[in-house]
Amino acid sequence: MSADNPLTHFDAQGQAHMVDVGDKAHTARVARAAGSITMLPATFALVRDGNAKKGDVLGVARIAGIQASKRTSDLIPLCHPIALTKVSVDFSLDEANNRVDCEVTARTTGQTGVEMEALTAVSVALLTIYDMCKAVDRGMRIDGIHLLEKAGGKSGHWTAE
Amino acid sequence: MSADNPLTHFDAQGQAHMVDVGDKAHTARVARAAGSITMLPATFALVRDGNAKKGDVLGVARIAGIQASKRTSDLIPLCHPIALTKVSVDFSLDEANNRVDCEVTARTTGQTGVEMEALTAVSVALLTIYDMCKAVDRGMRIDGIHLLEKAGGKSGHWTAE
Amino acid sequence: MSADNPLTHFDAQGQAHMVDVGDKAHTARVARAAGSITMLPATFALVRDGNAKKGDVLGVARIAGIQASKRTSDLIPLCHPIALTKVSVDFSLDEANNRVDCEVTARTTGQTGVEMEALTAVSVALLTIYDMCKAVDRGMRIDGIHLLEKAGGKSGHWTAE
Amino acid sequence: MSADNPLTHFDAQGQAHMVDVGDKAHTARVARAAGSITMLPATFALVRDGNAKKGDVLGVARIAGIQASKRTSDLIPLCHPIALTKVSVDFSLDEANNRVDCEVTARTTGQTGVEMEALTAVSVALLTIYDMCKAVDRGMRIDGIHLLEKAGGKSGHWTAE
Amino acid sequence: MSADNPLTHFDAQGQAHMVDVGDKAHTARVARAAGSITMLPATFALVRDGNAKKGDVLGVARIAGIQASKRTSDLIPLCHPIALTKVSVDFSLDEANNRVDCEVTARTTGQTGVEMEALTAVSVALLTIYDMCKAVDRGMRIDGIHLLEKAGGKSGHWTAE
Amino acid sequence: MSADNPLTHFDAQGQAHMVDVGDKAHTARVARAAGSITMLPATFALVRDGNAKKGDVLGVARIAGIQASKRTSDLIPLCHPIALTKVSVDFSLDEANNRVDCEVTARTTGQTGVEMEALTAVSVALLTIYDMCKAVDRGMRIDGIHLLEKAGGKSGHWTAE
Repeated sequence: MSADNPLTHFDAQGQAHMVDVGDKAHTARVARAAGSITMLPATFALVRDGNAKKGDVLGVARIAGIQASKRTSDLIPLCHPIALTKVSVDFSLDEANNRVDCEVTARTTGQTGVEMEALTAVSVALLTIYDMCKAVDRGMRIDGIHLLEKAGGKSGHWTAE
Repeated sequence: MSADNPLTHFDAQGQAHMVDVGDKAHTARVARAAGSITMLPATFALVRDGNAKKGDVLGVARIAGIQASKRTSDLIPLCHPIALTKVSVDFSLDEANNRVDCEVTARTTGQTGVEMEALTAVSVALLTIYDMCKAVDRGMRIDGIHLLEKAGGKSGHWTAE
Repeated sequence: MSADNPLTHFDAQGQAHMVDVGDKAHTARVARAAGSITMLPATFALVRDGNAKKGDVLGVARIAGIQASKRTSDLIPLCHPIALTKVSVDFSLDEANNRVDCEVTARTTGQTGVEMEALTAVSVALLTIYDMCKAVDRGMRIDGIHLLEKAGGKSGHWTAE
Repeated sequence: MSADNPLTHFDAQGQAHMVDVGDKAHTARVARAAGSITMLPATFALVRDGNAKKGDVLGVARIAGIQASKRTSDLIPLCHPIALTKVSVDFSLDEANNRVDCEVTARTTGQTGVEMEALTAVSVALLTIYDMCKAVDRGMRIDGIHLLEKAGGKSGHWTAE
Repeated sequence: MSADNPLTHFDAQGQAHMVDVGDKAHTARVARAAGSITMLPATFALVRDGNAKKGDVLGVARIAGIQASKRTSDLIPLCHPIALTKVSVDFSLDEANNRVDCEVTARTTGQTGVEMEALTAVSVALLTIYDMCKAVDRGMRIDGIHLLEKAGGKSGHWTAE
Repeated sequence: MSADNPLTHFDAQGQAHMVDVGDKAHTARVARAAGSITMLPATFALVRDGNAKKGDVLGVARIAGIQASKRTSDLIPLCHPIALTKVSVDFSLDEANNRVDCEVTARTTGQTGVEMEALTAVSVALLTIYDMCKAVDRGMRIDGIHLLEKAGGKSGHWTAE
C-alpha cells in the first residue's frame, strides 16, 4: 500500500493500474466466498426437486460458476490473470427461507489471491439460477455475496467474523 | 411455457436448451436492475472522495459493468445473444449506511428481454468496487441484486413492488 | 460464388475475407448436425449410469455445446457473427457400440446459415465428454461429425443422404 | 481418482468440480492428437491446390487451430487454464481417400496435461476447413479425432496402440 | 449530441455510458480505414517474399485483423455490439519506403457505424506483422491509422481529405 | 532462430506455429511501448479538460488498454499466453501538437517477452480515445506505435535509439 493512496489499484496520481505483484512470493492461496438467492416457495420447490429428469437448475448453475471463475481477470479490469488449480461450487437449500445458498472455494499457487475468482463464481452461479427461473418468478433477489475466508500470501489468514 | 415444465430452459425430458425465440416479435425492450455494496465508513469515504485525482473507483466500476453486460450470453449458459442498443450504470451514495447503490438500465430491440444483461452489469460493477477496495476492507458485502422493471415483449410491463 | 474462385471465402486474388452477406435476405434458417464418441464398455457404463447423483457427464457436455455454439464466429475465422434464436443438444446411447451419439439443432433468422454453429456445438460437446472420461479411458475416439440438414436461404433445403 | 467416483471431474456427491491439481508436480508435458476430414474429389483438389494465390485453406485452418488451443479452458468447462509453451498444427493430404489429415502437438510445463488443448486444436482446424469449403461440398465428414500420445505427469507416457 | 456534452459517450453528469442507438434507422453502413508499418529493408524483403512456402506473414495478419474486427465491442468499452456482414483486409507493399500498407473495409446493416471495427482490424493486423517479424527487427513502427471513408447513417458520407 | 527461416514464427516448411519456449529461462521481463493520437484543437481541449465531471476520456482509455493487454494472446495468433504481473498506461498531453501521447509498461516473470502486451495496450487505449471523440472529429490519426524498451530473457536489454 503506497503512502499516497490506500487504494492500491491507483497510483500516486490517482490513475488506475494493474499493480505490480512480480516481487510477491509464490504461495498456495485459497479463498472461500458465499452468497444466496431468495425466491417464491413455488420456485424454490422447482429448484429443489430439479434433477436430470425435470431440469437440473443447480447443475447448470454450478458449471456457469466454474467457467466464470476462469474469466475473472477478463471481467474485473484490474485483476491479475491467474491459473486456478481448483474451483468448486456448492449449493445448500434453506427450506425455511426459500433460499439457495452458494459457497465457492478457489485455489491457486501464485503471486496474488483468488478472492475475486471465488466471488465472481458465486455471482454468476446465482445469476444463472435467476435466469433459469425468471419465467416463473421475476422477483428473486440475490444477497449476501461476501468473502468467507482467505489464506496464503503476505496478508495471511483472514476469516469473516 | 410448456405444459410439461414450468422452467422453460428445460425441455419435457428435463434437458437444458436455449429455448426457441425465433417466433417472438421484435419489440423495444428495456430492463432496470439494482444492487448495492456495504463497506466500512473509512472505505466509503475513500470511494465517495475518489475522483480523477485520487482514484475514480466508480468510474472504473461503471466501465466494467457496461463491458460485462455485453458478455452476458457468454457468461449465462442459456441466455440468447443480444445486440444491446443502450447500457447505463448509475451509482448513488447512501451516506447513512456506508453503502454504494448501483442501478443499470439496458435496452434493445429484439426477440428476448434484457433482464440478465442489466443484472450482470450490476453484479460485475459491484464486484469491481470490491476488487478496488479489498486491500483496505475484505468484509464488504453485496446485497439486493434484483430486477426493478422490465418492459417490452409478450409478458408486458413488470415492476418490482 | 465468384467466377474466379469456387471457394467463396477467398477473393479473386486468393485472399481470405469475410464474404459480404449484406444483400442476402433475412430468412428463418435451421441446421442440424451430428457426431459421436466411442469408448470402452466400462467407460460407456459410467456415462450411461451418470446422473445428478453419480455425475451427469451428458448434462455438462450439453451446456458446453450450447455455449460453444454462441462462440462460433470467435473460433472459426471467416464465420459471420450470428444471433442464434435456438440451440438444442441431444444425446442418445448406442449400447451395442459403446457409443454416445450427439445431435444439435441450431436456428436463427438472418442473412447466413447456422451450419457452423451446429457443427461447433457437436464438436465441443463431444470433446467435453472426452475430458470428463479421460482419466479412465484415453483411447476414446470422436467420429462422424457431419451436417444432417440445412434449411433457409438461397441455397434451399439440403439433407445428407 | 477418488474411491467413490472413477470420474475425477465429479466429487463423491456427483457434483462437477474443477479438480485440485495444486499438489501435482510441475513437469514438462506434451500431447499429440489427430483427426481428419473427408471430402469430394473436386473439393479435395481445391484444398490441395490452394496457396497464397488461389486461397490457402490449410493456412487459415492452421491459425484457427492454434488460436483455439489457447481457448481450451474457456470452451471445456472443467479444464484447467494452462500456459501453453508450444502448439503446432500439421496437415497431410491422403490423395487416395480425398482426405486431409491433421496432427497437433501441444506442450507446456505445468501441473496438468495438455490433451484437451491438442484435441481442441484438431477439432477447430478441421471445422475451419469445413467452413471454407462448405459452399461447394456440404457433405464433408470429420472422423478419427483421438489422442496419439501423452507424456509428462504422474500417469506417465501413453501412446495409442 | 446532447446540449451539455459534445462527447456523446458521456451523459450530462460526465458519466460514461453506451449511448442509446435504439431509435436510429437500420441502414447499410460501410467504413474504410488504413494504417501502415515501416521496417528495415531486410525485414521488408522477408515479408514481401513470404508465401505458403517460406512463411505467409500477411496471410496470418489478414486473419488476425478479420477476427479482431469481430471482437471490437469487446475491446472498446463503449462500442455497441454489431453483426458485421463483411470484412476485408488488404495489404500493399511500398518498396520505396520499406512499408506495408493495410486497408480494411467493414460493412453492416444496422443502427450504428462500423468505423471502430475497421480501425481495430487495421491495428491488430499491423500488430500481428510486428509480432511475426520482431525476432529480426524490434524497431518497426506503426503509423497513420485513420479513417478513410464512412457511409450510411444520419451523419452521411464522410471521406478523409 | 532456425537456420532455415529467420522468421521464427514459421517452421522450415513455412508453416506458422506457436514456437516452443519451454526451454527458455523464467526471468523477470519488462517492456515499454508508446504511441500517440493527433486531433483537432477543439477535440484536444475536450480531452484535456475532461474529468469525472465532464467525461474522463483518458480514464476510460486507460482501463481499455489494461484490459486489452490481458487479451493479447487471444488477439495475436502466435503469441504465447502470459500471466502479466503489472500493466500501467500513462498519458501525456502535447499541447503544441494537439496530441495525446500514450506510454505503457508491462511486466511478467516468464519464458517469453511482453512486447506485444505493451504494444496491444497502447493500440487499444488510442483506439478508445478515437471512439470517444469520433462524434466531433473523424479525422484523428494514430501514429508512432513502437517499442521503447525491452529487458529480460536471452536477447537482453534493447532500447529504441
